[in-house]
Amino acid sequence: MNIFPNQVYPVYWYQDHVRLIDQTHLPNEFAVVEINRSDDMALAIKTMIVRGAPAIGVAAAYGMYLGAREIHTDNRDQFLAQLEQVAENLKATRPTAVNLFWAIDRMMKTARQTVGPVDYLKEVLKETAQQINAEDLETCYAIGDQGLKVLPEKPTKLRLLTHCNAGALATAGYGTALGVVRSAFREGRLERLYIDETRPRLQGAKLTSWECVQEGIPVTLITDSMAAHCMKLGMVDAVVVGADRIAANGDAANKIGTYSLAIVAQAHNVPFFVAAPLSTVDFTIADGTQIPIEERDPVEIYKIGETRICPFGVEFYNPSFDVTPADLITGIITEFGAVKPSELVQFQERRVV
Amino acid sequence: MNIFPNQVYPVYWYQDHVRLIDQTHLPNEFAVVEINRSDDMALAIKTMIVRGAPAIGVAAAYGMYLGAREIHTDNRDQFLAQLEQVAENLKATRPTAVNLFWAIDRMMKTARQTVGPVDYLKEVLKETAQQINAEDLETCYAIGDQGLKVLPEKPTKLRLLTHCNAGALATAGYGTALGVVRSAFREGRLERLYIDETRPRLQGAKLTSWECVQEGIPVTLITDSMAAHCMKLGMVDAVVVGADRIAANGDAANKIGTYSLAIVAQAHNVPFFVAAPLSTVDFTIADGTQIPIEERDPVEIYKIGETRICPFGVEFYNPSFDVTPADLITGIITEFGAVKPSELVQFQERRVV
Repeated sequence: MNIFPNQVYPVYWYQDHVRLIDQTHLPNEFAVVEINRSDDMALAIKTMIVRGAPAIGVAAAYGMYLGAREIHTDNRDQFLAQLEQVAENLKATRPTAVNLFWAIDRMMKTARQTVGPVDYLKEVLKETAQQINAEDLETCYAIGDQGLKVLPEKPTKLRLLTHCNAGALATAGYGTALGVVRSAFREGRLERLYIDETRPRLQGAKLTSWECVQEGIPVTLITDSMAAHCMKLGMVDAVVVGADRIAANGDAANKIGTYSLAIVAQAHNVPFFVAAPLSTVDFTIADGTQIPIEERDPVEIYKIGETRICPFGVEFYNPSFDVTPADLITGIITEFGAVKPSELVQFQERRVV
Repeated sequence: MNIFPNQVYPVYWYQDHVRLIDQTHLPNEFAVVEINRSDDMALAIKTMIVRGAPAIGVAAAYGMYLGAREIHTDNRDQFLAQLEQVAENLKATRPTAVNLFWAIDRMMKTARQTVGPVDYLKEVLKETAQQINAEDLETCYAIGDQGLKVLPEKPTKLRLLTHCNAGALATAGYGTALGVVRSAFREGRLERLYIDETRPRLQGAKLTSWECVQEGIPVTLITDSMAAHCMKLGMVDAVVVGADRIAANGDAANKIGTYSLAIVAQAHNVPFFVAAPLSTVDFTIADGTQIPIEERDPVEIYKIGETRICPFGVEFYNPSFDVTPADLITGIITEFGAVKPSELVQFQERRVV
């Protein structure tokens, strides 16, 4: 399946530890961070060295194993109690992406359900984290190919638009929304990708455009405020974005600005797709009002590189995510197929854990 | 009328030349540029040392006088022919804002209609430029007070949102959209101003927030992509923006992102006002499709301060303006009153030149 020689893997197991691509330094510097301890993984998630809902899930799974490895006891109950602390610590990093909680809960459940000595439990946890990693990659390939089936049939060469980074860097590799873009590119169906720069952290400009350049995918960078104008001029055939958490009714939380983009897409009759693995769907919440929205440090708004862009004396509001209601979403593309938001519930039993 | 002790005048006559606040260095540095020649004024307009549709009009009027002063002939016909060249040079600076053309045409018409020797014509041109300057200031005061009449009656203390800078810096002083905000603040009707940072040039973050801080107007900076989310949370009572050119039917060109903002305002039933002097209305064009949209250098997108935000190999699209169709506009606030876009034509005869 790997047709991209420069494919990016932001989280992977290397010898006896985890390697992360440091996403805070891209695109100007490609640096790899070595993570040996669970606390370091929690910090890497919090500071967005690793980011993107599925990638956070994979990273957290490894974080659980690294934490397990640090527990020095042969007593199973003590081990599980201490592993709960590791889980709590990792869960406290970021509130919105549900894959974080999904991966940690799956690791915790695996530990509880495994019979045998503590050393054996540790070994099973390592294998489970690696399995979550491998599954996520396969899931992204499947999402990409499922997306191909629901993209508009005309024009033959599509002009797609995305927001933020739901790419290889946001997953184990290949990407969700960008997985769909990659599959379209592979099949000769992509004319061009328009990418919103995605303020405040500029993941579109810094990460998505970097991924595209690695692979020769034609990409045009615009500011977030230009998407509506581009749609009015007929430059966009479909929008594909990722998600950090999807409620049972199909309401989808994603990077701030996604909601705005969905409104303007509907105003121009441009189809709007959300691409995400089933692990992103939180069937325990009925709708998007129950998704907690992370607020981050205002420095993300007022400082870009070394430049302060506004005077002192100004206040800030920095919500990192917004919720796009299901009625603005044309289809949700999962590894099991693309469905209308209202039909998402049919997949509930397929979700692992 | 001047109730703001720190009031900002971005363009004004000083002794024998023009002084401009250099808006490319705000908010980190307050610098004044001295303009003695018409060519320098053209460059200042092109490089956005002075920007904002009404301020560009005032600057261009002075540019016409400075150009007239540089013409060394006593022959009236030769003088007028050379003044036409000055006019063409100034008109070639920026294509979208109609106030530029309006002010230059008014100066040219004044020269043609004035009887007397060339030296007298020059003196009349100087007075006319100063009059355009003074009129624009009075116009902004009037717009601010007309705006007060149409802002929502509830809540008593309003949360307004604006985009880009239609403030004192964009006019002779006081501002158009920000004139309305100032009048609301003066009357105790302003709870807070939300300001879109306004990528790519960040005029909201750099200029509007700077103006607000000077005068103690409570201001919260958000990214352009956050406005829809804020509206969904019920944080915004009305939007007020400026305009660079308004067609006879009320379609309004303004800074890129305004169109997007108008769509999301309508989606949330938030009233959307355009505040502009009648000199911004181009009654010669029927609708917004005829307004030329300036495309600027992509460096505005890919570089912020000294930071390059994306890798090499990416393409860019950098339209500076977009057109908001009349049906998304609740009211257009002019110095003669606020009207529905469709009623704008009633003011046609009041427009000078």
